[in-house]
This record gives sequence, C-alpha cells and structure tokens, in this order.
Amino acid sequence: MASILPSAVERLVAELARLPGLGPRSAQRLAFHIMKAPDERARALAESIVEVKERLRPCARCFGFAEDELCPICADPRRDPALLCAVEEPSAIIPIERTHEYRGYYHVLGGALSPIDGVDPEDLRLGELSDRIDREGVEELVIATNPTMSGEATALYLADMVRGRVRVTRLASGLPVGADLEHADELTLGRALLGRREI
Amino acid sequence: MASILPSAVERLVAELARLPGLGPRSAQRLAFHIMKAPDERARALAESIVEVKERLRPCARCFGFAEDELCPICADPRRDPALLCAVEEPSAIIPIERTHEYRGYYHVLGGALSPIDGVDPEDLRLGELSDRIDREGVEELVIATNPTMSGEATALYLADMVRGRVRVTRLASGLPVGADLEHADELTLGRALLGRREI
Repeated sequence: MASILPSAVERLVAELARLPGLGPRSAQRLAFHIMKAPDERARALAESIVEVKERLRPCARCFGFAEDELCPICADPRRDPALLCAVEEPSAIIPIERTHEYRGYYHVLGGALSPIDGVDPEDLRLGELSDRIDREGVEELVIATNPTMSGEATALYLADMVRGRVRVTRLASGLPVGADLEHADELTLGRALLGRREI
Repeated sequence: MASILPSAVERLVAELARLPGLGPRSAQRLAFHIMKAPDERARALAESIVEVKERLRPCARCFGFAEDELCPICADPRRDPALLCAVEEPSAIIPIERTHEYRGYYHVLGGALSPIDGVDPEDLRLGELSDRIDREGVEELVIATNPTMSGEATALYLADMVRGRVRVTRLASGLPVGADLEHADELTLGRALLGRREI
C-alpha cells in the first residue's frame, strides 16, 4: 500500500491518523476530501488549525476553551450563578448547551477518576471547583460526568466532597428518547427502572 | 450556539465543515480532536494540508494524484500493461489496490455520465482513455465505475466506445461477502441472481 500514494498524501494521512479518535480509514477518507477541496479552502483550513492552537488557552474560571482570560460562557453575566455544572472535558459543554435546558456556568474537571489509568483526585480540578462553590454563590452542582465507570466514580467522589454545602444533582440515566425497549442493553434498562417516575 | 465557542474554534469548525463529505457534527468532533492534539501535531497537520495542495497534480498518464509527472503506479514498470482499469475518481484506486487482486494500470475518468447534472461524455477523459488503449497495448479494459445509475451508464458508454478493440469487463455486482440474504436489498439480490455461477 505504501508505494501507491504520492508521499505528500501519505504524510497527510499519517498526520490525520495521529489525531485522537481518527482511525486509518477515516484519515484516508478525510485526506481525499482535503485533496478534492479548492486550494483556498485547504489553506484556510490549515490556517485555522494553526490559529486554534495558538490562540486557545484554558478559561481562567471554568477551564473550558478560551481566547481571552474568560471563555464566552464565563464572560456572559446573564447566566445563572446559582447553577454550576461539572463536566469531564470541554467537549461535553456543547451537547449540554444544545439542549437549551441549562443556563448556569460550567466547570471542566479535566478527566474522570480512574486509579487503573493513574487518574487520582489530585489530577482533577477539584480544589478549583470547591473554591468556586464557596466564592460564586453556587446553590446546585449538576454533575454531568459521563455515564461510565469512571464518570460514575467521579460523580460519587464529587458528591461526597461538596455534600452539605450545595444541592448535588446528577444527569438522569435511562432509555434514550425514541429508543426501543427490545434493543436496550440491560444496564440502561436497569437504570431506567431504578429512575422510574410517577406520571 | 454561535456565542458559546471562542471564535478561533468557530472558524476551525466552519473550515472543516466546508470539506466535501463532512457535516457539522463531524466537523465539530474533528475540531475537538485537533484542539486536544499536541501543538506540534496540529502544526504538522496544517503543514501537510498545505503541502498536499501545493505538491499534488494530476498524473500525466492516468490522471490520478501525482507529485511527479507520473503517479507511483504509472511509474511502476512491474505492472501489467495489458490490463487497464477505468475508475471515476482517484479515491477508487485505493480500495482496488487493497484487494491485491489487480496488477494493471488505472485511468481516472474524472466522474460519471449524468446528463441531469450536466456531465456529458466530453466532460470525462474518454479521448485520453481511447488513446491509451491504442498506444499502450491494452488487452482488457476493466470498468470499475460505481454500481450506481450514472456509474452503470458510464460503463455501458465506455463498453460501446471500445468494443472490438479490447476485451471489456465490469466488476461483478452481488452480495457482499459475509452478508445475510435476509438483509440484502432487492437490487443487490437481483444482481446476485442474474450473475449466478456454477460451482
């Protein structure tokens, strides 16, 4: 295979395949998209990649992505300061914003507890979270870590850490909207049962 | 949504979303991969994008991607010159190479006939194909256009064009290996029946 593609294409595919989350097939598909795109688009893309790495830094308050000291969300005074939502990574903020159901601020933990991978409480931004809860008048901490083993462990740890100081809530687990009971996995269905509500 | 992401991120997502074949969700996912990647990887990626657009040009013989006058395949004298495979786009060459079942050369048509989209015979590299058949000692033209309406129309047109001068073959249509009869669509199953072979 190595010999059939021009070396510039091989290099592009290799660089794309090094991105977290991109396999060799997706990298190749993407490389062909780039090769088909007009020159000025490819150049603008290359520039925006360099720019994003040069200009982005962690938000001084929530540790999301920012260009200035604060990210656009932390810089927005119309948000509700009584609500703080803890997420593992900045990328989790976008799907939550997309729901239009949350109007508070965020706190990016920087991962989830996973002793087996060497991620201990001191590796997450827990001290910063605790300070914010004291300083910003937070009334409810919404824990939006992933519904995975390490996300759940992190949620429990966080809840213990702040218990008595704020109300602590967790995103509901259950059946996805539009899902079919027949195809639900046991864990999800079990959660849906445990979390059942009166209607 | 526009206001919650730093503008450098918005620009990167917008540039990615402009690539053919990438929707807004994939663009956003990819932007986050790039943002998480180390600085030097992102820079190398940006450089390889610029490089691929600067260095690639159509192969003078097959119109695939080349850095020099000829692409690596056309420059390889160990290939079988009696076999020529017509494809719609350069990206079709890779999956064929991956099978290791073909050792001839290629000819990139530059699309498929589609009068409704304004793609007529004179828009494809048919004259060049005809010249190559005469000049290069081709004995079999393998038509590997896509199994779509326009790919089939192109195959028929091509076959008529070169009939009597070379043997013309077409990739078989049928059930994918490992597929389940129950889930096959009628068209594919119909093709599989029409193309049935004695065993």
